[in-house]
Amino acid sequence: MKPFMDENFLLETETARTLYHSHAAHMPIIDYHCHVSPEEIARDIKLENITKAWLGGDHYKWRLIRSGGVDERYITGDASDREKFDKFAQVLPRAIGNPLYHWTHLELKRYFGCDLILNPQNADAIWEICNERLTRDDMSVRGIIRKSNVTVVCTTDDPADSLEWHKIMRDDPSWEVKVLPAFRPDAAIGIEKPGFRDYLRGLSKASGIAIKSIDDLKAALEDRINFFAEMGCVASDHGLNYIPWEENCKEKAGAVFKQALAGELPGQSEADAFKAAMLLFLSEQYAKRGWAMQIHYGVVRGANSRMTAKLGADTGFDCISARDSSGAMYKLLDAMESGGGLPKTVLYSLNPNDDAYLATAIGAFQGPSLPGKLQHGSAWWFNDTKTGMAAQLTNLANLGILGNFIGMLTDSRSFLSYTRHEYFRRILCNLIGGWAENGEYPADMEFLGGLVRDISYNNAMRYFFGG
Amino acid sequence: MKPFMDENFLLETETARTLYHSHAAHMPIIDYHCHVSPEEIARDIKLENITKAWLGGDHYKWRLIRSGGVDERYITGDASDREKFDKFAQVLPRAIGNPLYHWTHLELKRYFGCDLILNPQNADAIWEICNERLTRDDMSVRGIIRKSNVTVVCTTDDPADSLEWHKIMRDDPSWEVKVLPAFRPDAAIGIEKPGFRDYLRGLSKASGIAIKSIDDLKAALEDRINFFAEMGCVASDHGLNYIPWEENCKEKAGAVFKQALAGELPGQSEADAFKAAMLLFLSEQYAKRGWAMQIHYGVVRGANSRMTAKLGADTGFDCISARDSSGAMYKLLDAMESGGGLPKTVLYSLNPNDDAYLATAIGAFQGPSLPGKLQHGSAWWFNDTKTGMAAQLTNLANLGILGNFIGMLTDSRSFLSYTRHEYFRRILCNLIGGWAENGEYPADMEFLGGLVRDISYNNAMRYFFGG
Amino acid sequence: MKPFMDENFLLETETARTLYHSHAAHMPIIDYHCHVSPEEIARDIKLENITKAWLGGDHYKWRLIRSGGVDERYITGDASDREKFDKFAQVLPRAIGNPLYHWTHLELKRYFGCDLILNPQNADAIWEICNERLTRDDMSVRGIIRKSNVTVVCTTDDPADSLEWHKIMRDDPSWEVKVLPAFRPDAAIGIEKPGFRDYLRGLSKASGIAIKSIDDLKAALEDRINFFAEMGCVASDHGLNYIPWEENCKEKAGAVFKQALAGELPGQSEADAFKAAMLLFLSEQYAKRGWAMQIHYGVVRGANSRMTAKLGADTGFDCISARDSSGAMYKLLDAMESGGGLPKTVLYSLNPNDDAYLATAIGAFQGPSLPGKLQHGSAWWFNDTKTGMAAQLTNLANLGILGNFIGMLTDSRSFLSYTRHEYFRRILCNLIGGWAENGEYPADMEFLGGLVRDISYNNAMRYFFGG
Repeated sequence: MKPFMDENFLLETETARTLYHSHAAHMPIIDYHCHVSPEEIARDIKLENITKAWLGGDHYKWRLIRSGGVDERYITGDASDREKFDKFAQVLPRAIGNPLYHWTHLELKRYFGCDLILNPQNADAIWEICNERLTRDDMSVRGIIRKSNVTVVCTTDDPADSLEWHKIMRDDPSWEVKVLPAFRPDAAIGIEKPGFRDYLRGLSKASGIAIKSIDDLKAALEDRINFFAEMGCVASDHGLNYIPWEENCKEKAGAVFKQALAGELPGQSEADAFKAAMLLFLSEQYAKRGWAMQIHYGVVRGANSRMTAKLGADTGFDCISARDSSGAMYKLLDAMESGGGLPKTVLYSLNPNDDAYLATAIGAFQGPSLPGKLQHGSAWWFNDTKTGMAAQLTNLANLGILGNFIGMLTDSRSFLSYTRHEYFRRILCNLIGGWAENGEYPADMEFLGGLVRDISYNNAMRYFFGG
Repeated sequence: MKPFMDENFLLETETARTLYHSHAAHMPIIDYHCHVSPEEIARDIKLENITKAWLGGDHYKWRLIRSGGVDERYITGDASDREKFDKFAQVLPRAIGNPLYHWTHLELKRYFGCDLILNPQNADAIWEICNERLTRDDMSVRGIIRKSNVTVVCTTDDPADSLEWHKIMRDDPSWEVKVLPAFRPDAAIGIEKPGFRDYLRGLSKASGIAIKSIDDLKAALEDRINFFAEMGCVASDHGLNYIPWEENCKEKAGAVFKQALAGELPGQSEADAFKAAMLLFLSEQYAKRGWAMQIHYGVVRGANSRMTAKLGADTGFDCISARDSSGAMYKLLDAMESGGGLPKTVLYSLNPNDDAYLATAIGAFQGPSLPGKLQHGSAWWFNDTKTGMAAQLTNLANLGILGNFIGMLTDSRSFLSYTRHEYFRRILCNLIGGWAENGEYPADMEFLGGLVRDISYNNAMRYFFGG
Repeated sequence: MKPFMDENFLLETETARTLYHSHAAHMPIIDYHCHVSPEEIARDIKLENITKAWLGGDHYKWRLIRSGGVDERYITGDASDREKFDKFAQVLPRAIGNPLYHWTHLELKRYFGCDLILNPQNADAIWEICNERLTRDDMSVRGIIRKSNVTVVCTTDDPADSLEWHKIMRDDPSWEVKVLPAFRPDAAIGIEKPGFRDYLRGLSKASGIAIKSIDDLKAALEDRINFFAEMGCVASDHGLNYIPWEENCKEKAGAVFKQALAGELPGQSEADAFKAAMLLFLSEQYAKRGWAMQIHYGVVRGANSRMTAKLGADTGFDCISARDSSGAMYKLLDAMESGGGLPKTVLYSLNPNDDAYLATAIGAFQGPSLPGKLQHGSAWWFNDTKTGMAAQLTNLANLGILGNFIGMLTDSRSFLSYTRHEYFRRILCNLIGGWAENGEYPADMEFLGGLVRDISYNNAMRYFFGG
């Protein structure tokens, strides 16, 4: 029996262990997609206590605790931080096999030097140990980022954002980690949302361009793209429930936008036409600047409307959508490609059943500009599990070139999530090591080590920075 | 090489073996969803011979034998029981990897004390052994239930059913196992079915309420729900081809029902509106009484219409539907939740691709009333296999709290199917034991043993009986 | 650590090794579906060099090389054969886990006696070794087929084809391998395609029947079917993007065809009605003659329209379609069955998510004429991987009778692809051997060996030739 989460956690063969310890473990991290707050890095805040660190805004954990039958007061309500922590400690042990179990204990080990198991018996001790540690200087947000060996963080930012905290960091000689904005114009194309016109006013203000037509909107976005580019941005991101597509969307979009400006709510096919046209426009902009376009889709947001009305978005009520986007995906990629504007693109679906077709989608649109120009992104959100990551990697290997994969990102709101890169790398090394041990690939450790280092870090650096 | 199906069948690690033998094996069984006949238990019948026991009404096996190229005469036709048995013995050996192979041999071992392999060479011996055993008193239906360590059986019953056999058993001091009805009103909402109006007449009679409007229908059903509740019912069940949903279904349903009463066949969206509205009404009734609502969907019934016309329903011609129900599922659950009427709910889809989204669906609607209020039911029907059960458990573990799972049910028409609980528990222990052995969970045998006992029995008891 | 691809490649247990080496390895091959050129066999050509052998027309490899960021000039363009070979040697090593990696090295070993690893360092040596071997007499196309122990090859042929090369081979006493045509009337039912009317003119000419109505079309096809039957054809094949279905399609089809003859492009539902009706007609013809009907579907062809316009069909831009065909599939099979015309049928979907429902579809339409009358075809195209084949076999085993499976086919354009049968048989033996070793099936080596020989060869011979 292997001890619980020792140094060879998830590494089942000798080759896997060598690949991890000699090659993967020491590579730096580029976290090319996440949701951490640039302000908190710029201000180098300290996390007040382990409840704030673990449970503040973390809807993965909220959801799990709810599923344990815990009252909302102890999750997002007015219970004390200690009470909330205790509920988590009570619920987690039954979540055997859940990635949160592994993430939690990896964080305890790596950031808090604590090998205790989180459960009600150990709750007191862990509460003390963690909170003491969090007072230390090397456990400020920057301290955590530094000790995680992170070289680049790409945050997720609205086009209208001033990026003031990014500027402060850029100009701070004492801060060596690149914290770059990523361009996420969801609100700018969310034509069916109630706040759309309000949003446009903010975008107008940020860009200095009055928005009276779709061309104005494009101009305003282009202005912001230029600003983001100046600020070092190399990636955009789009969060879509499904892939929108309508034939002749470019022709239809202007009129749909006009109506929306006039306060008319578009029907679904109108909204889809507008969004598809905007995605085509934006993709050209990204392509021109060498940015990567990330597309996250396959989601039903706030499925539980009662709780969403109470707690707002991103509070743990989102679900996988099984709606078929394959046809629309091909049409959209084809329209980008035909228009000459297909940028580097990373596709993520929340529905794991989409993985098979996504690997064929990227395969049909690869191009000579760089290896793996189109990517199937690492197992996203509900799929970011041991089996989910292994399945995504295996699917990529089956249908494409695994050695060109740009690898892991945290997608997290928490500064303690860099251990997810460790989790990913262990799974990667175990998979590749297993193949070599089983005679499925030559045991050329130098070459395999290089592959592992590339997937851990180098590929992403080359992909986003051409380095 | 492990011997075929020895005591450590499917238990690949030491920890798995300990978990199974010391914790799972001796837990009682609550069979909270099945299709056995209450009359046969009440009358404590004996099974005439092994053909009747194994092949009587068992469309899983009929289907397999048909797939072996056997003439229908030897399946549902007028061939002798011995001839039918021989065909099964001839076909089964080639069904390597099929759960029927394992179930059959588990039943031979556990109920007939027979370690022979079923094949044409052993057919004579097995025929003799089994038929002799079936004459013994401890092999009556009650004998089988007793030796299977079953404490509760929930049958599946129509609202218009008199539950007379349940009454007889309730009042029988010599019978200690609870045999409770479960409320399955499929016929009462099957508005598109030819026999719908006939059915309503029967329901009228059973409830004493003339049904002239949807409110009458609701009143009649509520009357029967009250009667089922008096009879100890704790669960309902719904068999749906797909999840029905229409916006404003409550407003539309009354008129649709009126038309149906007048003999007009509803269109699909009308039928969906009526069904959705009725599900909302019924869910409130269940919630009020603390009943669990089971929903089985994702089926195309009687795909082979020629054979179905000949043999009737449930004869082995049903198929998995891949129609997307995810959107409708979220809408339906949300409408229940918003109306305050979301009961304990157990979701089963026949399409294994739905598992991922179902685990997110339950996660978005959990509530503080009890741990795991919403459940993703154990791998159903075509998925009730070694790999299917492991996949369902892994998916649950990835996306929720496996420790709160209510576990296995037989869903069977056969009294010999309780061995499926053994099959499930072995797979469960192997999975959990494997995690512990691989350092993915602390090897705290007391805690792990408790989890296994809970998933085997205690969770379901608490879920259905609050115990 | 197992050496790379030694004699026990993919065989992880002793039982697996025995099953493979003593039973599977020496069985002949019936390649019942492929795309090799009958002319090249008839003329017994030699392959000019390893680039022509490996990369000529092989869009699997083109796609992979593109995905490595290689310019089209080195793939389908005017670069030299050596330059193209070098690009492949450069890209392949990073494709760890891809079946092309295994196929390539199996081909090197089995046909070229070369144990070198393909990479830039070994490119010179491999180029020399392979090209030298290709000059030898036993490496002509017929030589390769002979040394691969192939007894039957079914090519894929248009109804209008003269089958002249098949005739030459039939009449060639020096050639002992059956090379039979298979009937693929995609063009004859591709009513929405621009070249449809041109195609009909060719079909008219081939059949001597003027085509002025759907009945004429049927007569022409029946004429060709008779001709194919005379030429030894035992199988048809249909390549469909999705399964077409319309209620009352038979009634609608004639008018749709008339309009098409008049030059009117049909709408999608019209085209579906026509296609469904033609599939029903053809299935009856096949059933009458004891032919098997193969249906390949779930594809989006030429998703990248810019590249497809440049390079034509089958150049590496096809994708998996996730469109749901389950409902239409059941309707189509049911209409065939009800009409009494359901032939032996082999179903293949490109979407691996369809596997579960396909196994239930075949189960609902099996019949007494032969074991496994309906088959779920071996993992197709993008699924033809180690994990894809294991998943397809496991799914079959779970839901039907694995022992009746007709097994592997190459589906290839290359004469070196017969090693895919070896790859399949190793995976099959590993799966079955693993079950026996794990106590999940009795270790009766004679019986298991027979199963393996059947799935490797005998089942397909019986299925197609009744032998």
